[in-house]
Amino acid sequence: MKNRVITISREFGSGGRTIGKRTAEKLGIPCYDSELIHEIARESGFAESYIKDAGEYAPGGFFASAFSNRAFGPTNEDYLWQIQYHIITELAEKGPCVIVGRCADYILRDKADCMKVFIHADMDFRAKRIVDVYGEREESPVQRLKDKDKRRAAYYRFYTDMKWGHAQNYHITLDSGKLGIDKCVEILKGLY
Amino acid sequence: MKNRVITISREFGSGGRTIGKRTAEKLGIPCYDSELIHEIARESGFAESYIKDAGEYAPGGFFASAFSNRAFGPTNEDYLWQIQYHIITELAEKGPCVIVGRCADYILRDKADCMKVFIHADMDFRAKRIVDVYGEREESPVQRLKDKDKRRAAYYRFYTDMKWGHAQNYHITLDSGKLGIDKCVEILKGLY
Repeated sequence: MKNRVITISREFGSGGRTIGKRTAEKLGIPCYDSELIHEIARESGFAESYIKDAGEYAPGGFFASAFSNRAFGPTNEDYLWQIQYHIITELAEKGPCVIVGRCADYILRDKADCMKVFIHADMDFRAKRIVDVYGEREESPVQRLKDKDKRRAAYYRFYTDMKWGHAQNYHITLDSGKLGIDKCVEILKGLY
Repeated sequence: MKNRVITISREFGSGGRTIGKRTAEKLGIPCYDSELIHEIARESGFAESYIKDAGEYAPGGFFASAFSNRAFGPTNEDYLWQIQYHIITELAEKGPCVIVGRCADYILRDKADCMKVFIHADMDFRAKRIVDVYGEREESPVQRLKDKDKRRAAYYRFYTDMKWGHAQNYHITLDSGKLGIDKCVEILKGLY
């Protein structure tokens, strides 16, 4: 029996991480977001050794096929992807959990019983929220949102070859601005 | 105060119409699908008179701008779109309801307090369902699904200039194959 995992993709500022954390709390299971996954990578020493050894696998293995379109070989981002890939797989093997971001839905597609979630909201809601949560920056909130969304979509597309935010890739997508964060948590808890 | 309306877009065979009907039943409000909207058009005599008169508006009004990219003027489908547009607007003005298909989400975007829903499911679920519901045809179920999806996406795109099935266009999207039709009804009822 595979572990039940909730994966959450989200637009920047939509409250997806908060929804993930609160849902996990209510279900009594851990929630892993990108910060936590980075920390695990750092603490385990996995990152350093992996990057050191990765070159050895390059000619014939995974890297050769996955990165064949990169003229100068895998980038640091590609190594980080591999590290996160392994960590996410291990976390999902350990037990039920919520994982926010990092293309976890794609990584776990055959490895866990996933509930794949996408959280989004309109510009106004998100602009207000990122200023509340992260404070003012020199760049306007709308510009920050557009930039982040573009990067996330490109990252997702590159590593998964699927479209970010395309309803058919998820079991449920929710507009947190319209429905409210509490309602989103309630729905996800009810579905688990 | 605008009426509260649930609009349901759906992939062919996903059970979206059934979900709409059952949700409406549970809420005690009417559900209008494409058949019913066609019937209203026919009974009202609106269709005939509209098509007859529509030519008069062609040079300067709505038609000229909306269909300026159609080399030979509006098609029958364009007239039908206009008729449905008016009927859907009137239905939403009459009272709370569920409307399935017909780009109702787009038509009512400024005219009602809409909960915009998209229902989808994977090919296996839908292929099985269309054979159960509509029976066998000469064409394979998968071919029928692909064809219908393509037509719906093109229709939606043409008349709304938005992408069908793009999560950001909806307040909630649900995978009826994974979640089950009853669960979808329960969620929508809970959100109303």
